[in-house]
Amino acid sequence: MKMSLTAGLVMGALVAFSASHHAAADELRGTGDMGLVVERATGSLLVVENTTRTQLARVEGLGDLSHASIVYSRDARYGYVFGRDGGLTKVDLLTAKIDARVIQAGNAIGGAISQDGRLVAVSNYEPGGVKVFDAKTLKLVADIPTGSKTVGLVDAPGNRFVFSLYDEGAIWVADMSDPHTPKITKFENVGTQPYDGLISPDGRYYIAGLFGEDGMVMLDLWNIDKGPVRILDGYGRGEEKLPVYKMPHLEGWAMANGMAFVPAIGHHEVLVVDTTTWKEVARIPSHGQPVFVMAQPDGRQVWVNFAYPLNDTIQVIDTQTQKIIKTLTPGKGVLHMEFTPRGEDVWMSVRDLDLIKVFDTATFEQLAELPGLKPSGIFFTWRSGRIGL
Amino acid sequence: MKMSLTAGLVMGALVAFSASHHAAADELRGTGDMGLVVERATGSLLVVENTTRTQLARVEGLGDLSHASIVYSRDARYGYVFGRDGGLTKVDLLTAKIDARVIQAGNAIGGAISQDGRLVAVSNYEPGGVKVFDAKTLKLVADIPTGSKTVGLVDAPGNRFVFSLYDEGAIWVADMSDPHTPKITKFENVGTQPYDGLISPDGRYYIAGLFGEDGMVMLDLWNIDKGPVRILDGYGRGEEKLPVYKMPHLEGWAMANGMAFVPAIGHHEVLVVDTTTWKEVARIPSHGQPVFVMAQPDGRQVWVNFAYPLNDTIQVIDTQTQKIIKTLTPGKGVLHMEFTPRGEDVWMSVRDLDLIKVFDTATFEQLAELPGLKPSGIFFTWRSGRIGL
Repeated sequence: MKMSLTAGLVMGALVAFSASHHAAADELRGTGDMGLVVERATGSLLVVENTTRTQLARVEGLGDLSHASIVYSRDARYGYVFGRDGGLTKVDLLTAKIDARVIQAGNAIGGAISQDGRLVAVSNYEPGGVKVFDAKTLKLVADIPTGSKTVGLVDAPGNRFVFSLYDEGAIWVADMSDPHTPKITKFENVGTQPYDGLISPDGRYYIAGLFGEDGMVMLDLWNIDKGPVRILDGYGRGEEKLPVYKMPHLEGWAMANGMAFVPAIGHHEVLVVDTTTWKEVARIPSHGQPVFVMAQPDGRQVWVNFAYPLNDTIQVIDTQTQKIIKTLTPGKGVLHMEFTPRGEDVWMSVRDLDLIKVFDTATFEQLAELPGLKPSGIFFTWRSGRIGL
Repeated sequence: MKMSLTAGLVMGALVAFSASHHAAADELRGTGDMGLVVERATGSLLVVENTTRTQLARVEGLGDLSHASIVYSRDARYGYVFGRDGGLTKVDLLTAKIDARVIQAGNAIGGAISQDGRLVAVSNYEPGGVKVFDAKTLKLVADIPTGSKTVGLVDAPGNRFVFSLYDEGAIWVADMSDPHTPKITKFENVGTQPYDGLISPDGRYYIAGLFGEDGMVMLDLWNIDKGPVRILDGYGRGEEKLPVYKMPHLEGWAMANGMAFVPAIGHHEVLVVDTTTWKEVARIPSHGQPVFVMAQPDGRQVWVNFAYPLNDTIQVIDTQTQKIIKTLTPGKGVLHMEFTPRGEDVWMSVRDLDLIKVFDTATFEQLAELPGLKPSGIFFTWRSGRIGL
């Protein structure tokens, strides 16, 4: 279905399904193919499903959703939305309603759900620290002050949360096996200004980016006694050659085929890093400064979007040949991508067109487009079953 | 909750929830934490959920469930049950009812669901071949006669099915992009009597076991032009030293930490194979002949059960040290294991006790037990989002 892209028509279509969703909410349905799309400007979410590629409903009243991210309950029914304004909102995908909402800090940056699904944690800028909530009720379970802006919060096996302290140059690991009394292991002096973190898909390696230095720091959670080690010297901010429009989120690291595909900072390049040695082995010239470098679930291809002003383009890299095999131009403001669980389709937000476009990952054909209001992050419920997502 | 294990009490408990489940069926619920447990002797299934570790209902009338396996619809609502008697049954987990059922052959062995979730395929012994059904209706979409017992059927990216021809010594790859006219690529003379197959979690490597030879055959689907290659010479039936009580299913291969952990055939050993070279690098002595060697989702540990008469025991191997770090004796007839999506718990069927036991994978403590009638295979809905499961 092609739609006219005027805002009026888009709004009309959305209001229509918004009014009708309450009838549908009584129907039983599986939740494995559902998802939420962040509409940043309006503080709303679209509820979508990726089998027939449709919107089901809109949820409003989410507050400031810039840089918002979402994790899912273990039954794949509820999304936990982490807003920049410190709002933590539990959204019911089946009824398209807010189930619970708390303003838990003045300024927050991301969160995570524990391995067993019982706890949701948020990392905060203002005041710094991590707060941990009961996933069912959003009641506060534990407060972990850090005396620092806190960033790069992820879940790890063993019901642990791992996060970094920007002002302190530290990484903390919180074991939440007893939720009311977190056991915290602290690593000091890991490097200057860790600004974001990621965990490998198996939950073994925690990697933090350093804003103040060239290089990154890695903690092997299987061998935590060895402490953090420096990796990728030369990767970072110090020696920048081009203006950096946006520090790439570390979520934008793809691990595939024994390699990590990593956005170069300030360069029009994707770096290829051997995940055995953590050394750079190749650089792939790209259309612009990469923002998200995302691997298909099968690891066969990675898809890259770019920073402003080159953000109308997507490039696809073959992980075997490490060559760009396709360039697409979905439109201005391609902000995020998300694959269907087994990777046959990829969804992308095209903010300035008020559209979400769906492409076939094998043929690169556009399969569908859905209206959305300045869409940004797309998060499907398959994340519910994955470590670190 | 501990229960008396007399059949009467177990039956009583099961009848109780069976009668009450229709009330619960009207309630909305997420399906990401649900699953089915095969009750072989009674041709029934238990519907379970792994958040609070409970049974929700029983579904009856599934026919002969020996060697039954299950895949899930992409919305994680429906299970497709492949029975040994050629029955293909679509079960609705939310209503605990049979949604559709066909007897599609006289004798069948496993099946798969396509990457896009639209097709379900079954591999048949009698008559040989593969039949492909519409996942919604179970109407026949394509019939692929092979002139041979057909085994080792898996799904692969690109909406393909891959399977092996026992009598012909062949591997076929069926591209189902146009469901009514499968495009088939045939590899002949791959080895004598392929008896089962597996696909790596990324959908790249298809590996078939050879009943008639020592060794296995592997097809790299990323480089399909290169054709099948022999791997693991010496692995197989020829040089057996002990009676083989059960040819291990190839589903019982764990890929973790860059290694495959593989049941030795006829020996009390788990083989460790480097997945870069596909050469054996170590042998780990074990309690008995391994049947399933299953990796936790984080790859930190693999769990092993054993063939009769040593099937009351489970051993846990640390994938880093390649040593057995724990031996458990859940009871006679431990037939199968399944991990929760992020791996904090493992469920196991203990057939002769009519119990399903749940253990904490970090502490090895038993967390729960559920009654079941001669339980065997356990399949959770997180499989819905994974390639090859």
